[in-house]
Amino acid sequence: MTRPSATLSIGPVLGIGEIEPGDDLAGIIARQSQLADGDVVVVTQKIVSKAEGRLVPVGGDVAEQRRRIIEEESVRILRRRDELVISETSHGFVCANAGVDFSNVRSGWAALLPVDPDRSARRIRDGLRAATGRDVAVIVSDTFGRPWRRGVVDVAIGCAGIAAVLDLRGSLDANGRALQATEICLADEIAAAAELVMGKASGVPVAVVRGLDSTWFRRGSVAAEIIRPPGEDLFR
Amino acid sequence: MTRPSATLSIGPVLGIGEIEPGDDLAGIIARQSQLADGDVVVVTQKIVSKAEGRLVPVGGDVAEQRRRIIEEESVRILRRRDELVISETSHGFVCANAGVDFSNVRSGWAALLPVDPDRSARRIRDGLRAATGRDVAVIVSDTFGRPWRRGVVDVAIGCAGIAAVLDLRGSLDANGRALQATEICLADEIAAAAELVMGKASGVPVAVVRGLDSTWFRRGSVAAEIIRPPGEDLFR
Repeated sequence: MTRPSATLSIGPVLGIGEIEPGDDLAGIIARQSQLADGDVVVVTQKIVSKAEGRLVPVGGDVAEQRRRIIEEESVRILRRRDELVISETSHGFVCANAGVDFSNVRSGWAALLPVDPDRSARRIRDGLRAATGRDVAVIVSDTFGRPWRRGVVDVAIGCAGIAAVLDLRGSLDANGRALQATEICLADEIAAAAELVMGKASGVPVAVVRGLDSTWFRRGSVAAEIIRPPGEDLFR
Repeated sequence: MTRPSATLSIGPVLGIGEIEPGDDLAGIIARQSQLADGDVVVVTQKIVSKAEGRLVPVGGDVAEQRRRIIEEESVRILRRRDELVISETSHGFVCANAGVDFSNVRSGWAALLPVDPDRSARRIRDGLRAATGRDVAVIVSDTFGRPWRRGVVDVAIGCAGIAAVLDLRGSLDANGRALQATEICLADEIAAAAELVMGKASGVPVAVVRGLDSTWFRRGSVAAEIIRPPGEDLFR
């Protein structure tokens, strides 16, 4: 039985500025925020990829280069329509264009997904602890489309220090019957919530969520908890 | 160009109690909360369905009755595995078991989705305005699974007074290039955020989100903005 949470607050972290390969993301976030134990720091994939140097040049025939990069980053193409490719990445994410970003990156470059976004989250978390002494969780978020529903939402591609999926199996509802929807994708809900204060066009790449249930904080892994193995997936 | 939002707050509305067919949901929510202009009130589908009397008996052979109800509520079955059916409802939602709820409902009964969840949201919004004088938006949320990703998240099935999808087409990124992901499913992100203070097992069916960008408030419709017409859907 989870307790209803107290009121949550979600605030943008301003003044992060342009991130370059090699930048100390944790140090920059620590300087621009006032973290407390139990905060969840949500960091968009783009600045993580930039700090990690996951940038590739897009020169010559841009459309052709774009296609090549997306195919290199895909292990399987699921659907293709005009410029849009829905594919599975080496991580197991199914998303548009293999998660390769061509906007909010310097002209002539594209940003690839981090090699291991859970590891990226762990590194930022460790860096934040070293810089602030605070025990926080970190979620690396990205913007994905969905089948059947228009519009994109932010989801978690990596996490550290918080459950990716909250397992309520065995819990009973208010009438004592077994709960039906029992595995809540907590990390995706937190990533979506954080997007509400980021604003795609305003370049706020970090937000802090404060007030989440303390029982939800544990190691956590998007790869281990959220990626659905192809064998149990009805749509792959 | 959207402004970065100020800090958001998300709070549970406690003391809603058990909802019965015919109950005045707006009146009950108004009494249990202190609404302000610009709040978004997120109400879970289950109490909307109960108030609207969208309940059907599940008698006799429960497994057989369950199958019958799910098939009656579906216009098309997409996938089936054991007890799980993924189908499209008459509204155009693609979800498990046609959105029919068998938990958190009195034993022997199931709750169907509202006939027109946007209309349900408009009614609650009008009722809240009548009861409080406040101009708020309303989202009716439900819990859906997703292909490729484990765990469920709350999404919007109806809305009133707020954009379901935020259209940023034509906006430029911080480097002056056209934004890539330009239609944000705002209503789904708000529904997901609200779930974080509800807690599936704790029976908190309403939350209030305060602090969203005032430019996002307009008529809004999940049916018109979020449901992807089959013709433009790559996965139907």
